[in-house]
Amino acid sequence: MTDCWNSALLTDRYELTMLQGALHSGAAHRRTVFEMFARRLPEARRYGVVAGTGRFLDALEHFRFDTTALDYLSDAAIVDDRTLEWLAGYRFSGDVWGYGEGDCYFPGSPILVVEAPFAEAVLLETVALSIYNHDCAIASAASRMVTAAGGRPLIEMGSRRTHEAAAVAAARAAYLAGFDTTSNLAAGRAYGIPTAGTSAHAFVLLHDSERHAFAAQLAALGPETTLLVDTYDVVRAVRTGIELAGDRLGGVRIDSGDLAVLAGEVRKLLDENGADTTRIVVTGDLDEHAIQALAIAPVDGYGVGTALVTGSGAPTASLVYKLVARAHGEGPDVPMSPVAKRSVGKPSKGGRKWSTRRLADDGTARAELVYDREPEPAPNERPLLRRLVAAGEIVGREPLQAARERHRAAMAELPLTAQQMSRGEPAIPTLFGQV
Amino acid sequence: MTDCWNSALLTDRYELTMLQGALHSGAAHRRTVFEMFARRLPEARRYGVVAGTGRFLDALEHFRFDTTALDYLSDAAIVDDRTLEWLAGYRFSGDVWGYGEGDCYFPGSPILVVEAPFAEAVLLETVALSIYNHDCAIASAASRMVTAAGGRPLIEMGSRRTHEAAAVAAARAAYLAGFDTTSNLAAGRAYGIPTAGTSAHAFVLLHDSERHAFAAQLAALGPETTLLVDTYDVVRAVRTGIELAGDRLGGVRIDSGDLAVLAGEVRKLLDENGADTTRIVVTGDLDEHAIQALAIAPVDGYGVGTALVTGSGAPTASLVYKLVARAHGEGPDVPMSPVAKRSVGKPSKGGRKWSTRRLADDGTARAELVYDREPEPAPNERPLLRRLVAAGEIVGREPLQAARERHRAAMAELPLTAQQMSRGEPAIPTLFGQV
Repeated sequence: MTDCWNSALLTDRYELTMLQGALHSGAAHRRTVFEMFARRLPEARRYGVVAGTGRFLDALEHFRFDTTALDYLSDAAIVDDRTLEWLAGYRFSGDVWGYGEGDCYFPGSPILVVEAPFAEAVLLETVALSIYNHDCAIASAASRMVTAAGGRPLIEMGSRRTHEAAAVAAARAAYLAGFDTTSNLAAGRAYGIPTAGTSAHAFVLLHDSERHAFAAQLAALGPETTLLVDTYDVVRAVRTGIELAGDRLGGVRIDSGDLAVLAGEVRKLLDENGADTTRIVVTGDLDEHAIQALAIAPVDGYGVGTALVTGSGAPTASLVYKLVARAHGEGPDVPMSPVAKRSVGKPSKGGRKWSTRRLADDGTARAELVYDREPEPAPNERPLLRRLVAAGEIVGREPLQAARERHRAAMAELPLTAQQMSRGEPAIPTLFGQV
Repeated sequence: MTDCWNSALLTDRYELTMLQGALHSGAAHRRTVFEMFARRLPEARRYGVVAGTGRFLDALEHFRFDTTALDYLSDAAIVDDRTLEWLAGYRFSGDVWGYGEGDCYFPGSPILVVEAPFAEAVLLETVALSIYNHDCAIASAASRMVTAAGGRPLIEMGSRRTHEAAAVAAARAAYLAGFDTTSNLAAGRAYGIPTAGTSAHAFVLLHDSERHAFAAQLAALGPETTLLVDTYDVVRAVRTGIELAGDRLGGVRIDSGDLAVLAGEVRKLLDENGADTTRIVVTGDLDEHAIQALAIAPVDGYGVGTALVTGSGAPTASLVYKLVARAHGEGPDVPMSPVAKRSVGKPSKGGRKWSTRRLADDGTARAELVYDREPEPAPNERPLLRRLVAAGEIVGREPLQAARERHRAAMAELPLTAQQMSRGEPAIPTLFGQV
């Protein structure tokens, strides 16, 4: 990033022209409810992971039309003076509820519910969708990789394969879904995520020999470092590493070739030389399926790049943000009615929604229940909506660690079918019901 | 974006630990050449589009380790004090050449060539790859959509389906590849791209009837506006639009259903009512194939979202940044030798490269020629590398419009096979040769 945008301009032009239209008709001040949900899970996944909540609250807090933004809107004749004036005073005054960050979601889960006058709520559409669509896509892919890795550590190292700012958000999403570290230093600084890294082929090639390179790395970073061993010949490189670092060598990284076979050979070689604590890290176009295929190989950690930051086949979560209810007139006391379009193939259900996850006696999730009004607390139903914003004030902030823990708990609650890597039905059905 | 990062931290940790190793061994100051290229084109495309050059030069200009960054690196114990001191004084002093932004590229095309001491060049790896991998992926997808649209205007409207900052870069990449407008206001402000927008279903649903909504939009934005007509019933909505705006109605947008059939019906209805200048804009999960399938439908413009910002199946360009040559000692006069790793399945060719596009007598491109030294100018070869940075000074900046024009010219130069939407071989072969 070399430029910083006001989050208020991270918006589609039509939000502002709709605002102008609604200010003109007077409907701008009608109370409305917008909801964010997925019509289906991408790639026939078993579940989705809610991510982006913390970033959305940050964006909401800074959602202001400053002079620079207003000057642009004026100069480019995007909206009229009356609309500009309204934008200059924009402060979100409404209420927001959302699924806890890290929780799982299913088709129709109302993962974000915004209640505010139309003018205030409609402007948040683009930035809210951008954040959640990206972060949920990455977290949903990451979570499957965490399952596939079966407890072995995962390093997020996909920064170079995605937009430089998206890379930072991707590292955050991966961490909350259970990755252990990231290579991205900006994510380390911004979110306190532990960082990790090994070495690149360039470092070996820079030196007069692989031996020189390894010696330099060990001298500078200590024997606990991880050596990249596939620049020329893996077995020879591992021997060199052991010769130089002895059995205290921290790790070796294999980035190419048949990773399962190589890991086996390298493990044998390390063990024969007493380096039985030296870790083997594998990288190189890994996705959840490749990770799972390495389950029986003696691998101590996975570095994942491209597949992680591109959502492993689903780079966007396809979430939508839809008006589901609105008042028939202005004022806080005018009752709201459900609304829904009837466009072909894009059904949506009108009316504000509340949801819970129904659990069996053993605590296993059985269904996603979506109600048309707030249900009474029930012992076998976990309420899913948290208050995030109350009358414009952000009340739902929490540390990233809380989202990471919530995700772990949410996964433990799902039936085992959620852990299947194959394409299929959601792990639990979504049931729409009346209270 | 609610946070701004120093571009220097948009970097993988291992770049800095390699730097520490190379400072320790003394190899950090060896002259090196790094090149960025694609081993293959994603999705068996016919060509790739170079994009990101302007953004990379901006990032390079701001690539500085400021106090915040240095404090983080120190507190998190990423590198030692000597390395921190070196980073504090970091200024890129090297030379950079690159393909002109908007030009086409093929497997092996050296689209970026960085010549600098190792320490300076290695640190740019992550941010350079992030920018080019994202922007090239989007521009490459966009260019195919432009071909498929056959001269009809294209609106970029994918902001909500990708990271909020990536959205701005995506709008830029789409515009340089030939899109006409974007919905993204931040891109409008940052890059001067014309913005466009229509209206959402929420606007219709907010009002007491579709007629009320249309009347409000027409009153606020004038008859030249584009009405969204598929909230309830397309034909009825178009009739309402004509009743309210007469034959001066600017346009109608159809976002669902069988777009070809509906466009035909709507065109007939509009023409029967004298609204023969009213444009029909279609949207709704369009990609290059869907656009091409609508070629014979009476459509006046396409709005493209998801497929554009996710690279239509190839969300990253898979470009790599590799050390290809380095000196055997320090100093500006020590000659450089080619280097290349021998990792299985990831071949790379050592040595600095120069390239030209060979043209037939009629100006059609015949081959991408990649040389191991600078070739003599030849009348039937178009040199592809432009100087971007000279001894640390950025000299290659140009307006975005220049990239847009270059892309148009580069496409006109390629054989017709480049315009095929099917998967296949690159439109021209890459030939590696000696001068």
